Amino acid sequence: MRSEFLNSLSRTVGADSLLVGKDACFPYSTDWTKTPGNPLAVVLPRSTPELSKVLALCSKEKVPVVPSGGRTGLAAGAVPTNGELVVNLGRMDSLSEPSLLSRTVRVGAGAVTENVHQHCEKVGLTWPIDLASKGSCQIGGNLSTNAGGLKVIRYGMARKWVTSLEFVKMDGSVLTLNAGLEKNNTGYDLLQLMIGSEGTLGILTEATLKLVPVPEEKGKSIYFFAVKNALGLPYLFEKCRTGPFEILAFEFFSSKCLEAVSNKLGRESKLRGKGEYYVLAEVAGDRSRDAWAEATLSNPLVIDSLVADSSESQKQVWSLREGITESLALTASLRKHDLSVPVDQVASFLQDVEASLFEAKLPIELYFFGHFGDGSPHVNMLCPPSIPFEDFDRACDLFEPKLFGLVQQYRGSISSEHGVGLLKKKWLGFSRTKEELDIFRAIKSAFDPKGLLNPGKVF
Amino acid sequence: MRSEFLNSLSRTVGADSLLVGKDACFPYSTDWTKTPGNPLAVVLPRSTPELSKVLALCSKEKVPVVPSGGRTGLAAGAVPTNGELVVNLGRMDSLSEPSLLSRTVRVGAGAVTENVHQHCEKVGLTWPIDLASKGSCQIGGNLSTNAGGLKVIRYGMARKWVTSLEFVKMDGSVLTLNAGLEKNNTGYDLLQLMIGSEGTLGILTEATLKLVPVPEEKGKSIYFFAVKNALGLPYLFEKCRTGPFEILAFEFFSSKCLEAVSNKLGRESKLRGKGEYYVLAEVAGDRSRDAWAEATLSNPLVIDSLVADSSESQKQVWSLREGITESLALTASLRKHDLSVPVDQVASFLQDVEASLFEAKLPIELYFFGHFGDGSPHVNMLCPPSIPFEDFDRACDLFEPKLFGLVQQYRGSISSEHGVGLLKKKWLGFSRTKEELDIFRAIKSAFDPKGLLNPGKVF
Repeated sequence: MRSEFLNSLSRTVGADSLLVGKDACFPYSTDWTKTPGNPLAVVLPRSTPELSKVLALCSKEKVPVVPSGGRTGLAAGAVPTNGELVVNLGRMDSLSEPSLLSRTVRVGAGAVTENVHQHCEKVGLTWPIDLASKGSCQIGGNLSTNAGGLKVIRYGMARKWVTSLEFVKMDGSVLTLNAGLEKNNTGYDLLQLMIGSEGTLGILTEATLKLVPVPEEKGKSIYFFAVKNALGLPYLFEKCRTGPFEILAFEFFSSKCLEAVSNKLGRESKLRGKGEYYVLAEVAGDRSRDAWAEATLSNPLVIDSLVADSSESQKQVWSLREGITESLALTASLRKHDLSVPVDQVASFLQDVEASLFEAKLPIELYFFGHFGDGSPHVNMLCPPSIPFEDFDRACDLFEPKLFGLVQQYRGSISSEHGVGLLKKKWLGFSRTKEELDIFRAIKSAFDPKGLLNPGKVF
Repeated sequence: MRSEFLNSLSRTVGADSLLVGKDACFPYSTDWTKTPGNPLAVVLPRSTPELSKVLALCSKEKVPVVPSGGRTGLAAGAVPTNGELVVNLGRMDSLSEPSLLSRTVRVGAGAVTENVHQHCEKVGLTWPIDLASKGSCQIGGNLSTNAGGLKVIRYGMARKWVTSLEFVKMDGSVLTLNAGLEKNNTGYDLLQLMIGSEGTLGILTEATLKLVPVPEEKGKSIYFFAVKNALGLPYLFEKCRTGPFEILAFEFFSSKCLEAVSNKLGRESKLRGKGEYYVLAEVAGDRSRDAWAEATLSNPLVIDSLVADSSESQKQVWSLREGITESLALTASLRKHDLSVPVDQVASFLQDVEASLFEAKLPIELYFFGHFGDGSPHVNMLCPPSIPFEDFDRACDLFEPKLFGLVQQYRGSISSEHGVGLLKKKWLGFSRTKEELDIFRAIKSAFDPKGLLNPGKVF
């Protein structure tokens, strides 16, 4: 049965588009989470009609399918864990000429994000979704997960920067949504529904992306602040929001994160004053900032500050923020959560998380950092020195329901950016009601009645 | 049965919230299209719990419901044509304090758009959706129809400017989506699905709107151009897109539209040269434009141009564009269509529409104008002088399938802004495939299995 199906598949796509066997499939079996995968085989279609035939065959034979792109996911959304067929889009990486008039570009789902950037920059345009993984991740994955990244505060999430999608449903039918229109009020917005659906409704094959001119960023500076406590974060955010410039990034981290970066990577802050939290505010604009800076810094919540104007000094400040993930991984065993709450409640949320841990008396150290300006704190739980891993692990299991209970109380999100995939399913009920999940199921079965597409993911 | 239901309803909301009888219901029976309505009664709930009880009762008694706001719709989406109960949201018009920190405001669905603007402008913020109907239309209607309006080229459609929605399903259950989060990747984006669903999935009761600072618009000017033919439109749009300023509006109209404005309203263009088309480009920015203007105007496609810098001269140019709808209505019987195609294909589309009419030899005069920069031309068909209305009407019936056939060929939209409602249903198949409509139906029945909410609208 299984080998008969693989033979049919091989006849459909050609033997060189089908990978069978553990070794050949290995590179397509997992993502950045290293969740172990177990694929039936891997197919690498070259075109939408080819993919359509593959899915029609799978649908007929009831073979479940996992769509896969650059495999940089952080929720195991593209990992085949139950012998599914992996459909990798990497070969469908076409790039059309960007249209200067409509400021759009049509690309294959397998196009690597950084290649799209470079392709469009030749004509002075860019797709404003910028991700740490841009050298490997693909447009199809970016859209399937509604990627965010480094410029959300300025440009928003990926879903804002798309004017058409082509996708193949599990039954093999091909749909094109919106076809590059700026405006189209003709019924339910299936395009937005597809974005962020993590490959459970259809497999994206092509997209038209909206572009912006490559920004000039005149007068780019970084303000780096040490603040007394969490209250300094919203204070500075509001000051920066109303400041004489545009905010390009507004990141924060706790003093513990800074210590880890110093201890593990030897990167030191140039601020002399120490605070409970630090803020990196990248701004641009050509208006005078003197009066603003004087008024802002006079508040006793601000313990110390510096301005980085040169490219080198800016890199130095960014290197502190960018070193956090690595240095925490080098520090101890950890669990990480990518949360969000309304922007004006981040500080109070962090204080409540700390208070909740204090009350629970569990052996966990909390490290807070992330995109303050998007209301999106990362909460990392680390194993304290001298505590056995098992005790820490158990403590995390006990603390997580409290943490997610707080997320629910704040009507926040258990996954601000990374999606739900496989790894965050168990927390989904803290962000979504039973009623919403019922609607999810009905929508899923409208697109994929047999439940063969990315089964077991999201809900 | 009917009076029993109305008695129950009256007990639920109080007699002063229920309007019965033709005269009392009249103001809530139609919209700007003047499509005749025929409501069972009108209910004006004061709160979400009250609305929830109303819908639960209607659901139990199988009474169909039409949600209604400011009744400024142009597709009869809120008109009760078959004895439905009208639920008008006008009393649920609360306005919370805008949050400076998160740049959001929470408002009731019945809040009038202009009141929201004025409320937020007190603290220097605004909701960037600006509509000709803003003095009457309501936020619930703006979101249910994904309103566009005058600033789409700069800010996009309404769906970009919302961070939470509360709505009541037909069974009376209340859902809150997203709760003001900037980032939330936890499953299907039901918030975006609700926006633009024209009251067929649930009744919006509250929204959190994203705000922007009231724009300063330094150095605002209007360039007004006469161009030789349709090719001048994309030429100027590309020049303006790459010009030393930001585009605030990029509108176009044909010479016939200008003649109508002159004949009917006595408003005259200050340009001496005549062109087949005219362009109004409103721009802002403080960089020098001399070199740009010289290079742009040297193209023979540009027949004449002027720059309006004073507020008075800007008003004069805008009055030409704004007078078109009124003057066409004063000129002759007409049918209007609010279409869209990809921005880089508008000129070619208009030429094809003209050629198609020429070939069909039908007694129709075409008037083109609209939002060129959004790819959104209005195509108005007017009755030529001395042609009887019946002949014109028949000609329109014959020409419309050709017109929409062209829309389909360009993969355009039969309704770029106004929605589908009742009046555009028959053309929906030119923009949406059978497959998409099947998905619409499945989604509809996930939210409203009995099909009681805004029945017969959209599809």
